[in-house]
Amino acid sequence: MEQKEIWLESLITSTPQEGRELAIKMARKTIAAIQTDSEVRKKLRNEYANDTTQLIASAHVVAVEFQTIAQANNYWKK
Amino acid sequence: MEQKEIWLESLITSTPQEGRELAIKMARKTIAAIQTDSEVRKKLRNEYANDTTQLIASAHVVAVEFQTIAQANNYWKK
Amino acid sequence: MEQKEIWLESLITSTPQEGRELAIKMARKTIAAIQTDSEVRKKLRNEYANDTTQLIASAHVVAVEFQTIAQANNYWKK
Amino acid sequence: MEQKEIWLESLITSTPQEGRELAIKMARKTIAAIQTDSEVRKKLRNEYANDTTQLIASAHVVAVEFQTIAQANNYWKK
Amino acid sequence: MEQKEIWLESLITSTPQEGRELAIKMARKTIAAIQTDSEVRKKLRNEYANDTTQLIASAHVVAVEFQTIAQANNYWKK
Amino acid sequence: MEQKEIWLESLITSTPQEGRELAIKMARKTIAAIQTDSEVRKKLRNEYANDTTQLIASAHVVAVEFQTIAQANNYWKK
Repeated sequence: MEQKEIWLESLITSTPQEGRELAIKMARKTIAAIQTDSEVRKKLRNEYANDTTQLIASAHVVAVEFQTIAQANNYWKK
Repeated sequence: MEQKEIWLESLITSTPQEGRELAIKMARKTIAAIQTDSEVRKKLRNEYANDTTQLIASAHVVAVEFQTIAQANNYWKK
Repeated sequence: MEQKEIWLESLITSTPQEGRELAIKMARKTIAAIQTDSEVRKKLRNEYANDTTQLIASAHVVAVEFQTIAQANNYWKK
Repeated sequence: MEQKEIWLESLITSTPQEGRELAIKMARKTIAAIQTDSEVRKKLRNEYANDTTQLIASAHVVAVEFQTIAQANNYWKK
Repeated sequence: MEQKEIWLESLITSTPQEGRELAIKMARKTIAAIQTDSEVRKKLRNEYANDTTQLIASAHVVAVEFQTIAQANNYWKK
Repeated sequence: MEQKEIWLESLITSTPQEGRELAIKMARKTIAAIQTDSEVRKKLRNEYANDTTQLIASAHVVAVEFQTIAQANNYWKK
């Protein structure tokens, strides 16, 4: 197995908002794992950021990832 | 890390209806995180608010976000 | 904040079937929150009620909302 | 409120397979609640039963409904 | 009620991989319940197996079915 | 039953990141189960890796699979 970047050490975050950021990161990392060429991704990014259907679809993915993160953090209840 | 607005301090709301509002806010904030230009977002907003397919897709995202919020609030059971 | 209609006081319903009705109401209220013009909504409604793709997508949203409501009601177990 | 058919008295079924049937019924009832004209539904039905994209989308809705039913039945564990 | 094949006696499987197979079977059985003509299904199958959008949509349905099965099996933890 | 590769012995992984990798593998294995011709899959892969709509849809599937894996691992809490 090749050396690889460790980008997800834990699902625990300090705040819900950091949980949102992690959710976005997780979604992006999946896309990077499928489309490994960062130049292609940069070009594609421009497409979906201007297409409401794709923005909504992206928000959906983030919502699912966040659900997992929120459960992991027991909803940040004190 | 740049200074940023804190918009999600907690998933706890007083009522289910406030939970719905938070769910809508969370979905919008994701879209704002992907499409950072507010002028572009304003223009795009007009598109999806008049397209039933996109309205339904948006309602789907809100339903998923609300599921998380409802769990966090233990369904507002007294 | 402007005065607003309280339409979701509780996720608790007497029966599963009332839970289904609430799920449909929740989905519709989200769409009303995004497309605030009721005349436009009335016109759009005719579109999606005759398009199977959109009917199925709507049923999907209702299924997700109902999942939350069913959990809140502990599946109406006696 | 008008008199209406009681079609969902309980989420409890004897077997997982009956749970599948209930999931399909629930999805269909949502569509009937949105498109209330049964003649129109009959016509539309022919469309989606011959379109793989819509068949897959329908199967998705059934999967979500079944998830709720399976939870309600504690997965039919004895 | 007509005599019918019992194809889902239990959600319990010996291994996670058998759980995957059951998830695929469940998705296929839903499609068979909607499109009851097996000749039509065979023809349609060729379509979706060569269309990436539909393959991904199918994988999504299987993921949801598997989630239910995994919960039923307590994730096959020993 | 023919001899088959055992590729999913457990949902347990050492780290969240390995959980992500398993989620991607699970999604890919479903597609391989539907489209069994690896040459066809290779050709199709090029299509979806360059189409943002399909990349986002793929990320969605991975998010759902990961949710199951994260639950199985109790979110890798120590």
